[in-house]
Amino acid sequence: MLNFNIQPVKKELAAEINHKIDFKTKPAGALGDLEQIALKVSMIQETLSPELTKPHLVVFAADHGIAQSGVSKYPQEVTYQMVLNFVQGGAAINVFSRQHGISLKVVDAGVKGDFNGMPAVIDQKIAHGTENFAEQPAMTLEQAELALLKGAELVAQIAESGCNVIGFGEMGIANTSSAAVIMHKVMGIPLDGCVGRGTGLSDEQLDGKIKILQHAVEKYTVSSPMEVLRTFGGFEIAQMTGAMLKAAEMKMIILIDGFIATSALLIAQALVHEVRDYCLFCHQSDESGHRLMLDYLNAQPILKLNMRLGEGTGAALAYPIIQSAVNFLNEMASFESAGVSNSTP
Amino acid sequence: MLNFNIQPVKKELAAEINHKIDFKTKPAGALGDLEQIALKVSMIQETLSPELTKPHLVVFAADHGIAQSGVSKYPQEVTYQMVLNFVQGGAAINVFSRQHGISLKVVDAGVKGDFNGMPAVIDQKIAHGTENFAEQPAMTLEQAELALLKGAELVAQIAESGCNVIGFGEMGIANTSSAAVIMHKVMGIPLDGCVGRGTGLSDEQLDGKIKILQHAVEKYTVSSPMEVLRTFGGFEIAQMTGAMLKAAEMKMIILIDGFIATSALLIAQALVHEVRDYCLFCHQSDESGHRLMLDYLNAQPILKLNMRLGEGTGAALAYPIIQSAVNFLNEMASFESAGVSNSTP
Repeated sequence: MLNFNIQPVKKELAAEINHKIDFKTKPAGALGDLEQIALKVSMIQETLSPELTKPHLVVFAADHGIAQSGVSKYPQEVTYQMVLNFVQGGAAINVFSRQHGISLKVVDAGVKGDFNGMPAVIDQKIAHGTENFAEQPAMTLEQAELALLKGAELVAQIAESGCNVIGFGEMGIANTSSAAVIMHKVMGIPLDGCVGRGTGLSDEQLDGKIKILQHAVEKYTVSSPMEVLRTFGGFEIAQMTGAMLKAAEMKMIILIDGFIATSALLIAQALVHEVRDYCLFCHQSDESGHRLMLDYLNAQPILKLNMRLGEGTGAALAYPIIQSAVNFLNEMASFESAGVSNSTP
Repeated sequence: MLNFNIQPVKKELAAEINHKIDFKTKPAGALGDLEQIALKVSMIQETLSPELTKPHLVVFAADHGIAQSGVSKYPQEVTYQMVLNFVQGGAAINVFSRQHGISLKVVDAGVKGDFNGMPAVIDQKIAHGTENFAEQPAMTLEQAELALLKGAELVAQIAESGCNVIGFGEMGIANTSSAAVIMHKVMGIPLDGCVGRGTGLSDEQLDGKIKILQHAVEKYTVSSPMEVLRTFGGFEIAQMTGAMLKAAEMKMIILIDGFIATSALLIAQALVHEVRDYCLFCHQSDESGHRLMLDYLNAQPILKLNMRLGEGTGAALAYPIIQSAVNFLNEMASFESAGVSNSTP
């Protein structure tokens, strides 16, 4: 098993950072959540003058055997087609990454089709999609460990290029099913609170999805995080898990996207609790279970735009807000430097 | 009295715009609020390919006689000092406007001190602060009308430079008191639901503020929007009101900031109902009454970052989200163009 050496974020500087925040030319607390973000980024970077360098977003794509049980409105080949769309720059995540100067990397973590050495697709394929966990475990333990390793190796490489802030997105038809079951197993709450409409199921289709997943879950008695991951996960979720753990080990700021990305964090946190310290929660998804995941993680999302697209879109859209938090801390005048009177006690 | 000729936004194109949104490579509705913003911007601009050009943010500053009754934690000279801070680029709104390429204009709408022809301060001073409405009406009707005119003229000039999206911010010690009373009079709800902590009053100070305002309100029996504005308003609020009405007349997209800006919109809407059609609500302020104002306007804010700073900071922070809405509509591939399969019915 891989080992991740994640240091808890040190709180020593907190008082000094808060003092800097409080003496900016604004009423105390008036920048709300931005002040919390500035504090967190500063503590992670152990500085009063934090900086975001070479932001990256990595989209992991993979196929899911459970798609064959009919849990999604979209045919499975959409995973492959959307990877081509990412490569051609036509997906939502391309648009938002371009807008904010975020470098986008696309990873084949286990798509059914082959990309034949296409240079814009990073080949980290574990297999041509997972097995259908309605019938057998999605992957072997060796595959799950290999996926963690590959996710981690990619992040190490990106960090070496000078990046200190990284978001993770995903594409994989039927992956809300994997994420919902992971949520159910890790958080220990009933399955029907975890399963949502994914790409837009009707009431009847949602009932069907819950029944299929309930039936599948009852086949197994797994409980350790790695067993949950390998039994119900996807290759993109497993690679994200490894990627998050490595990013925390390297003290990067981790941008957590929506439902699927947060399911990867649930596994990552169960493996190494301190990973949580490095996360900014970017967007509360419209997928119904996500609010509960965020509550479980005691996390306040930066945005709530009723999106449910994945790809890392929530992370990309929150990025300018995080940049604003860093900017106000570095660029705003203090009461003293601007000659502005502070409040009466 | 000024006349504003505001056309209601035409709904004719809505079906065509929604069709374009729905055939982007994403599940229907998956971009959530961004889809609503894209629809609105497109309808305002009467096009399927909207564009945001030369974004501006105008900060109106003015002093308030009611400050002398002790409703704020900050001394009145902070209004003047903060205008200098804007000019020197050290305030939060400077930082966020720079980040997003928004042109920032600073207007002296009625600050107590003089800026002696400082070129970076646009001189639209109506008087050296309003009268204290605890004793007499804040301004004369002529002053209120002149303020509307000056706000409108500035917007016309900015529009001529090629700007089609404009936000309004403000600075004025004690202006939450004006805004709260305007809210009370326009919305017809009890005053204590309208009055909040402003820059950070304690419970006791808040009680004092409510008592002072309650006492002041009882002196008058005004009800028409212009009478409410001139009795309780500020010169920055009045200029914003005129600015918003002119922006709507010129079919610009109006970025509505927090509590004070929304109080100006309450007056603007009471004068010409159609102004509401051109507004995007950028941020729900932490000032307690703002949620009620937004409910009254049937408005969903884009952001909710627990800020309560004013200056137009909420508008500036929401700008990249609005740009993202425009970008996805213009830049994302369609299912057809990308060769991606759409969902099964």
